[in-house]
Amino acid sequence: MGYPMARNLRVKASADDMLVIFDVNKDATTQFVDELGLTSKKIVVAGKLEEVVDRSDTIITMLPQPQHVKTVFSSFLNVSSSPAGKEQKLFIDCSTIDISTSLSVGKSVCESALNGQFVDAPVSGGTVGAAAGTLTFMVGSEPALLPRIMSLLSRMGSRVIHCGPPGAGLAGKLSNNYLLSITNIATAEAMNLGIKLGLDSKVLKDLINVSSGRCWSSEVNNPVDTAQREFKGGFGVSLMKKDLKLAIQAAEETGAKLAMGEKAKEVYEAVEGVEECKGRDFSVVYRWLGGEEGKM
Amino acid sequence: MGYPMARNLRVKASADDMLVIFDVNKDATTQFVDELGLTSKKIVVAGKLEEVVDRSDTIITMLPQPQHVKTVFSSFLNVSSSPAGKEQKLFIDCSTIDISTSLSVGKSVCESALNGQFVDAPVSGGTVGAAAGTLTFMVGSEPALLPRIMSLLSRMGSRVIHCGPPGAGLAGKLSNNYLLSITNIATAEAMNLGIKLGLDSKVLKDLINVSSGRCWSSEVNNPVDTAQREFKGGFGVSLMKKDLKLAIQAAEETGAKLAMGEKAKEVYEAVEGVEECKGRDFSVVYRWLGGEEGKM
Repeated sequence: MGYPMARNLRVKASADDMLVIFDVNKDATTQFVDELGLTSKKIVVAGKLEEVVDRSDTIITMLPQPQHVKTVFSSFLNVSSSPAGKEQKLFIDCSTIDISTSLSVGKSVCESALNGQFVDAPVSGGTVGAAAGTLTFMVGSEPALLPRIMSLLSRMGSRVIHCGPPGAGLAGKLSNNYLLSITNIATAEAMNLGIKLGLDSKVLKDLINVSSGRCWSSEVNNPVDTAQREFKGGFGVSLMKKDLKLAIQAAEETGAKLAMGEKAKEVYEAVEGVEECKGRDFSVVYRWLGGEEGKM
Repeated sequence: MGYPMARNLRVKASADDMLVIFDVNKDATTQFVDELGLTSKKIVVAGKLEEVVDRSDTIITMLPQPQHVKTVFSSFLNVSSSPAGKEQKLFIDCSTIDISTSLSVGKSVCESALNGQFVDAPVSGGTVGAAAGTLTFMVGSEPALLPRIMSLLSRMGSRVIHCGPPGAGLAGKLSNNYLLSITNIATAEAMNLGIKLGLDSKVLKDLINVSSGRCWSSEVNNPVDTAQREFKGGFGVSLMKKDLKLAIQAAEETGAKLAMGEKAKEVYEAVEGVEECKGRDFSVVYRWLGGEEGKM
């Protein structure tokens, strides 16, 4: 996700802006410079993490798991302090992680010698949205920071939703993705049921999409359609499982009752454990159910 | 449901058409005549079920459970036969029942002395759609019958979807409502989770409705909205449970794997068992989860 996001940030930023990039995967940063170096010299590859903070006013992170966010931010805190008189450094974390870790990392940034500001801004839209610059950012931030955030994020996304104070961006993302994790399974089940009952898959899809079963999973990411590309690309089943687990964890922490969560988690774990489903788009639940493929 | 459907049928039918009505609830038929008698004399209240078949070319049934459909149609079969030379009698059953019963009843009508034709045409849209004449009919029928069916059903609904041969209307309805039964629970869970995590309910609803969690339950029948009318009206929780059970039964008969069905059934059974939820709109799952009411 980070690569196409950084690409859009560089392409749409002002010519004077300097982009300092870092990735543990050196091939990624090399490829980035190769791809964009001809059109802009304003790219610096940082030698180490601390250098990103040293040389930047705004630091954007996009990391897979809570432990990566913790590790990266503890490196950031090694930087002594912001130069006096300059605008406070702003940290925008786009990772989808648990709210507790995000709040704790944000607090450490604000209270350290860095005297930084921190917002959570997880995204939806996947790698396709990242490449097209059409991501949705769900932002948890103090209102005063919004103008500064908006102008930056709008280079990488088409929609920025302010959900509330720090942590609220993640709360929105996890709530939405909890719902998605279930509608995805239910859509696969309903399509499979109807087809097994003898319905034409296109008739069934069209019927659901003008009826009360209509959802993003039936309209945009219908498993009978994704089966046509063998469930390749899209949002991986392991990422869906990860987000679902984070939602279940958030529900436990806050005492919100989830009736379907554990059963859905079992499903994604089972799906991921099957060789012909592993690593595919999360709608591959349809294949796991034994759904007919290649009919539409 | 039958009352507003018959009302639209009478109001929108040609002035020459005769409507023969029957209901075990005599108050309903008396009220119907009182309400419509002044504008049209073309209403007959049948003294017994057989009279409806005797006096009609097309017979429309709308009944709660499979056993009611069986009982009513065995009364119909007492009628000796259709008068020679007349168009075959057409039976349109709008009940949501199991496919096996529907096919069996249809077969008995076609093979009996009545020499009738039979289609399944379950509806979606609820009592509100029935009153407004905006129901969706999901039709299982031989194609040759469609013109005759369309002109009739379009008086009671705004959309008639031909799903396939006999039984296909019910297959479509049960598949759609299976999906709905799950998205309804998941929406209630996601709204409750997000609000418990501190989100404003309107912000959360708007966020989901432009994101991948978007579904009919979040957009049209959001539990935070229905809580405002104390979950009154709408589609009753017992009806949702009934449709879900029919879908599970159909899945068992056809070997379609449902991963979430039993868990969802447990939820609706538990919800129905709680006094402050019983008899309410099925989105009352939100109340059962302990969702905050009266915030939006």
